[in-house]
Amino acid sequence: MNVDGKEMRPIWFEKDSQTVKVIDQRFLPHQFIAKDLNTVDDTIYAIKEMVVRGAPLIGATGALGVYIALVQKDNKGCDNDYLNSQCKRLKDARPTAMNLFWGVDRVSSAALKHENYKNRVEAALNEALKIIEEEAFNCQKIGEYGLPIIEKISKKKNEKPVNVLTHCNAGWLACIEYGTATAPIYTAFDNSIDVHVWVDETRPLNQGSRLTAWELGKHGVHHTIITDNAGGHIMQHGMVDIVIVGTDRTTRSGDVANKIGTYLKALAAKDNNIPFYVALPSSTFDWNITNGIADIPIEERDPDEIKYVYGLLNGKSARVLVPPEESPAANHAFDVTPARLVTGFITERGVCKAAEQDIISLFPERSK
Amino acid sequence: MNVDGKEMRPIWFEKDSQTVKVIDQRFLPHQFIAKDLNTVDDTIYAIKEMVVRGAPLIGATGALGVYIALVQKDNKGCDNDYLNSQCKRLKDARPTAMNLFWGVDRVSSAALKHENYKNRVEAALNEALKIIEEEAFNCQKIGEYGLPIIEKISKKKNEKPVNVLTHCNAGWLACIEYGTATAPIYTAFDNSIDVHVWVDETRPLNQGSRLTAWELGKHGVHHTIITDNAGGHIMQHGMVDIVIVGTDRTTRSGDVANKIGTYLKALAAKDNNIPFYVALPSSTFDWNITNGIADIPIEERDPDEIKYVYGLLNGKSARVLVPPEESPAANHAFDVTPARLVTGFITERGVCKAAEQDIISLFPERSK
Repeated sequence: MNVDGKEMRPIWFEKDSQTVKVIDQRFLPHQFIAKDLNTVDDTIYAIKEMVVRGAPLIGATGALGVYIALVQKDNKGCDNDYLNSQCKRLKDARPTAMNLFWGVDRVSSAALKHENYKNRVEAALNEALKIIEEEAFNCQKIGEYGLPIIEKISKKKNEKPVNVLTHCNAGWLACIEYGTATAPIYTAFDNSIDVHVWVDETRPLNQGSRLTAWELGKHGVHHTIITDNAGGHIMQHGMVDIVIVGTDRTTRSGDVANKIGTYLKALAAKDNNIPFYVALPSSTFDWNITNGIADIPIEERDPDEIKYVYGLLNGKSARVLVPPEESPAANHAFDVTPARLVTGFITERGVCKAAEQDIISLFPERSK
Repeated sequence: MNVDGKEMRPIWFEKDSQTVKVIDQRFLPHQFIAKDLNTVDDTIYAIKEMVVRGAPLIGATGALGVYIALVQKDNKGCDNDYLNSQCKRLKDARPTAMNLFWGVDRVSSAALKHENYKNRVEAALNEALKIIEEEAFNCQKIGEYGLPIIEKISKKKNEKPVNVLTHCNAGWLACIEYGTATAPIYTAFDNSIDVHVWVDETRPLNQGSRLTAWELGKHGVHHTIITDNAGGHIMQHGMVDIVIVGTDRTTRSGDVANKIGTYLKALAAKDNNIPFYVALPSSTFDWNITNGIADIPIEERDPDEIKYVYGLLNGKSARVLVPPEESPAANHAFDVTPARLVTGFITERGVCKAAEQDIISLFPERSK
């Protein structure tokens, strides 16, 4: 997408230097830093420490991580055990996003088809880059399928601004292009529909106020940052027309694990009769599970992510301690929104209800 | 209450210097600063800028503000117009908390009964100090009436820790002693019941992580800070036994205006069959209204309260900018929780359902 007139993706393979590069999202919006991933350790660090984040991007990074495992200095050529152990390490980097396991497995399967080292490397790189292009294409399709939903609201409101609320960053920074939750927004904006986005700041890591606000602003989309607490109030007062969020893992029955706090917004949307959509590429489906609350492991992260807040001070990045240093904190990173609270899914194959039968009608190859 | 072995209140009248003093809560938990209020301007600044905050404390500060108007340097003795105009200024300092209007009106009525200047000053001071003692007593009663609710849960859990979730700071810092939402917690703790408190950080001003965590810690109560986003998840997983919050204004029908985000917690409590109690002195009732969402004005505050976060850096207070500087933000300070989501009120006269008939049975003098 466009950043100050330059086409940009959050991850790319630089051909000249044969290097995987990512935007270090920890420093946005105040600093734009590109980072090289040269080893599996680099890649795991990038995923764990949220240099890269967002389900589709985690998947893409894991996919390229398999290629990195094969070409890094101490690689063991065609040793399958080595490759499998590196893949396991990559998949263990974060526990919730489905795309990570999916991306790593797909690239390692493609690589393991080849006995010859050069072919194996080539297959891994090609498969990873293919995943990246597919994800970009899927997000474009999500935008196209989401557009009529926003268009309809716009018409009903006589073209007054359509107010979309989103939580966290399911934008192009979390994906490759367009984003998932933001794809219908960008597509509507590019089609001259008047949209305004309420951006939840998304504590503790502020992906909303740091990243979503930044990318919407760069694209020229009208938006307002609110605290995570505010969504219910503005819904009660008719200031939200639709909620669109992303997902990190989705059960075949339609339960959605997304950034902590999503469930609260879904409850408020339900209580105020506001449509609540989840936008997702099918790579986030976990086809093996049906009970999100019982079966999706929820990552617990470092409590210091809550206690210390990063921001800009005198032109430099600084972090301040907010609570008493001795007070403990608990940092659950995701929650599960039950299917009953979801109006619909916007996928790369179309829109469907959050119910197994409806999901399977779009993805018949997944019927049991 | 106890701070490092010293008895402390958030507001007091220092007899020797004849001065009203408050704790400047903007600097807690990292700095303890006492501030003099010498003029109505000082008092309005303290209320507006949240040097003092919390409905009962705002009421107490407004009450002493009437006395301050009468004794400040440029006071106009027994000019009723002067006194009335100063009272109006005080009441306009913040729009949502009922206690402010109530406290100011009560003290000015007491003062206006006297024609003699000295008597007027004396009446104002006595009435304000009486309000402060009443509020302290009311909070003590709220603790006594709330205790059996926590006791019952503790017994049901075979004395395993009772997990209470609270939002914002409705502690002694917001009141005079005990607090409102915290009164049953402190009373349970002082009665050797094992309690653990989930403290919502309460963006944007972090009254939970800064103030509630600080006062619970000073009293020795086991607590854990969580983001405002986390409450739904921990309720889904059986980690919350009861929610107790305060209120800034309460309708006679039982709707509750409290810190923004309270409504979201009430929805989650309902969805998970967890009791949701509101603790309040009757001074927060607005007996004239029945529709909270339509009739309670919700304060909008400076967006910079969202964009900039205060905390400790190298031993000093500092503020960092989180989002892009050019992104707008909207800062609604309260929301309204409809009575249907409230399990009960804990008042200084006992516990009742959040319904007009039940409220009036405790406060029969308010029946129409």
